[in-house]
Amino acid sequence: MTKDNAISYYKETVKKLKAFQYIAFLASWDSQTQAPKESFGLESEQLGLLSEMQYGIQTDPKFIEAINTLYEVRNELDDVLSHEIEVQHKEVEQVKKIPKEEFSEFSKLIAGAYPTWVEAKQKSDFSIFAPLLEKIIAYKKKETAWLATEDRKGYDVLLDMYEPGLTKEDCDRFFGVLKEKLVPFIKKVTSTELEGDFAFGDRAYPRRKQREFCEYLRDVLCFDKNRGLMMESEHPFTTNFGTDDIRITNHYYPNNFTSAVFSVIHETGHSLYELQCDRALNETLSGGGASMAMHESQSRFYENMIGRSRAFWEAHYAKLQYVFPEQLEDVDLDLFMKYINRTEISFVRTAADELTYPLHIMVRYDLEKEFIENDIPVEKLPELWNQKFEEYFGVTPPDDQNGILQDVHWCYGDIGYFPTYALGSAYAAQFFDSMNKDFDVYASLASGDTKEVNEWLKEKIHRFGSSKYPKEIIRYATGKDFDPNYYVDYLIKKYSAVYGIAD
Amino acid sequence: MTKDNAISYYKETVKKLKAFQYIAFLASWDSQTQAPKESFGLESEQLGLLSEMQYGIQTDPKFIEAINTLYEVRNELDDVLSHEIEVQHKEVEQVKKIPKEEFSEFSKLIAGAYPTWVEAKQKSDFSIFAPLLEKIIAYKKKETAWLATEDRKGYDVLLDMYEPGLTKEDCDRFFGVLKEKLVPFIKKVTSTELEGDFAFGDRAYPRRKQREFCEYLRDVLCFDKNRGLMMESEHPFTTNFGTDDIRITNHYYPNNFTSAVFSVIHETGHSLYELQCDRALNETLSGGGASMAMHESQSRFYENMIGRSRAFWEAHYAKLQYVFPEQLEDVDLDLFMKYINRTEISFVRTAADELTYPLHIMVRYDLEKEFIENDIPVEKLPELWNQKFEEYFGVTPPDDQNGILQDVHWCYGDIGYFPTYALGSAYAAQFFDSMNKDFDVYASLASGDTKEVNEWLKEKIHRFGSSKYPKEIIRYATGKDFDPNYYVDYLIKKYSAVYGIAD
Repeated sequence: MTKDNAISYYKETVKKLKAFQYIAFLASWDSQTQAPKESFGLESEQLGLLSEMQYGIQTDPKFIEAINTLYEVRNELDDVLSHEIEVQHKEVEQVKKIPKEEFSEFSKLIAGAYPTWVEAKQKSDFSIFAPLLEKIIAYKKKETAWLATEDRKGYDVLLDMYEPGLTKEDCDRFFGVLKEKLVPFIKKVTSTELEGDFAFGDRAYPRRKQREFCEYLRDVLCFDKNRGLMMESEHPFTTNFGTDDIRITNHYYPNNFTSAVFSVIHETGHSLYELQCDRALNETLSGGGASMAMHESQSRFYENMIGRSRAFWEAHYAKLQYVFPEQLEDVDLDLFMKYINRTEISFVRTAADELTYPLHIMVRYDLEKEFIENDIPVEKLPELWNQKFEEYFGVTPPDDQNGILQDVHWCYGDIGYFPTYALGSAYAAQFFDSMNKDFDVYASLASGDTKEVNEWLKEKIHRFGSSKYPKEIIRYATGKDFDPNYYVDYLIKKYSAVYGIAD
Repeated sequence: MTKDNAISYYKETVKKLKAFQYIAFLASWDSQTQAPKESFGLESEQLGLLSEMQYGIQTDPKFIEAINTLYEVRNELDDVLSHEIEVQHKEVEQVKKIPKEEFSEFSKLIAGAYPTWVEAKQKSDFSIFAPLLEKIIAYKKKETAWLATEDRKGYDVLLDMYEPGLTKEDCDRFFGVLKEKLVPFIKKVTSTELEGDFAFGDRAYPRRKQREFCEYLRDVLCFDKNRGLMMESEHPFTTNFGTDDIRITNHYYPNNFTSAVFSVIHETGHSLYELQCDRALNETLSGGGASMAMHESQSRFYENMIGRSRAFWEAHYAKLQYVFPEQLEDVDLDLFMKYINRTEISFVRTAADELTYPLHIMVRYDLEKEFIENDIPVEKLPELWNQKFEEYFGVTPPDDQNGILQDVHWCYGDIGYFPTYALGSAYAAQFFDSMNKDFDVYASLASGDTKEVNEWLKEKIHRFGSSKYPKEIIRYATGKDFDPNYYVDYLIKKYSAVYGIAD
């Protein structure tokens, strides 16, 4: 195959793969927002058949030959294609190394795992989930062996699947700083009482009014309604097809209005990453976010650095009071700011606040590294979880439902995924620091929208899509390698002020 | 290819075609109800590619060989497959007869036709549309020649495309009865004034309240919410995938509440046809309605025979008044019944009422038959339209916008389609007559829902999907061939009563 033939065959196949991505996008949006309950049987049959067709295209020997051909001459390709071929080639090489029967057996195991986990969690009985988890861990260990390379072994293999290039060394350095500085700081904060009457948070906030205010916030963040839409679903999420169809959802709880407020900011953050990607990447496999953690860095940046800042609410609190006059007439901005930045230890990660969140990830990181790299009997894991939790938070989960059984991820085989959640926030803090060197971020919010912020992120991060590795983008955007100290310093400075603790 | 090989290859290919039907269903639902405005460019690219894939499957020589093999032994197949193979074989034979280049050129012509028609209609200038229409008619004439068979020639070829087995002879008999009995009756009705103050129809009916009442009606008709949903769109429509995912839309006009009321009944009628089809047909190409006219017969049956009947509103008018207390407190059932059954000549088909509607179709039928079977210069058509309109309605359209330019259908090449609209209502009247022989339909509505009606239609019509020809189903359901007198008698009896005209 000549280079030119390879390029044209590759691009033609990519077009087909994009068409199947579109189907997956549409079907998953439909099932999560509207599809009638009993339609799933008939429709999953179609989706099964369509993924078989897609698999046939992905594994077409001529497509793989094109990738291999282009990999040999990758230095002669343009930057985007060269990066993409490197990524595709790595995937092709990895797929080759995984024994088909083992993969297929594992896929079946995973496909049936969800109800078992649900039952175990509902009954708070780890013994129901343990045999399954044991098999999942055993497979993932084998996977690390199959996919090991010269410079990537053990848990590193799994980390790299979710965050390209991430290593234990990176994580150990990252979590090391958190352990050293953040753990003692959080102990100080959580033993300090935050004064204020927060009962207004429990008042009734009608869903229709919440929606109205969330639509206002979506506009403040300059979400392009001609290329996106917002609906409702059980859990808020963002999905998209390319740069021209970005969809977010929200969920409105009548007695917890800040849930929807911060969800819309979070999801709009994700959506801006997609909306502001270079449109030319729509024709490639290099659109979308550079990694899980990079995507999460954008949503957390808008949710926390922007959305929980005083400058932001100085511009928008009057509107919030206007929408909820009865509920908020006696609540001044000071009290509201305390309310949205109060912190509390929770046993459950998904209920955790900005400050305590990363400690939940540390518990999972320690455990995963341990059970992937060493031989820990599965029945020891709940105890290990509780020990780690006690070490970081100073309290022990009351049961496994609020401990090791709380997350769905392991039952899907997602081991190595959790660190991206904490990394996202940490990347965000480093971006925030750099952005502030270019302009006064909080001052810019007085304009009433986030245009200047959006522009900076577009130029430094968004436009590249996934055409560069996360580490390259961080270096381009901030002039430095990733450094967790920005994150810890940001948290300590912010929460020292909220809780009146001397730095 | 052996019979068994042919059956298994055929069924395997049908499965793939169903998967592509699912995509088309999902994408068209999405684009008509929610997709962001600027997403269409990117997404139509994917859909184009997917239809190419679908076309490849449909024209796969081995699939066609399987169809041909099975056609030879169709008498040995089960009823459903035998009918389906006959239909598929006919299609294969037809496709063979159409010169590829001519078809492709015509497809391009049609693809670009819509804006020209819109411009002509907006400017009420037929000369803008005429050159295009001339080409469309020329192609359709050639098509009738290519596809002519021993017993199907000229306009019959086109009629058969939308209503299998329908002929000019059928239509002439049908429209002949209408001309003879209905045209003079309508002249009598439209010269009689209907007494009553209908100003309440112009009051403000909030959209949210309209939606509430339409959801109530949907439940009255026993629409299965676990297998369907209702949303909003510019024009109401029904779409579905198999028996387990049926979606309808509505549109709420604040100053015209009956529009949404009769739309929801109409669309729920369509949806019951799909919901009550034999579930086993989901695996075949024989699901869905037997023809355009059969589908329309079901929606019109619910909308007109049921939805505009006094018995129906005796059961539900109190609820309507409860939802709109201020708007309807001074409106009694008598006045309301007059309001929803008043009739008036309209120049525009889509604004026509139950009684005058079929005359609009007659105008189009006469014209189509004329220009397909004879050589009429295209510039003569507006005049011909107006003459026919004058002949049936006694008035002449003021301009071409309200005359020959009003419908979009011809610009898509849909010639031979219009008769199905009138036939639908006529089939409905014949079904209504037969149903009343089995039980007292109006008495059954006192139960508060349409269960008994639904059951009858399921047993006699719905369950067969498209696994039989319309003529077979009519014979099965009513014990007779189609007879237009049921329709004319129904209309004359009903509107004589409404307008106090002696029969």
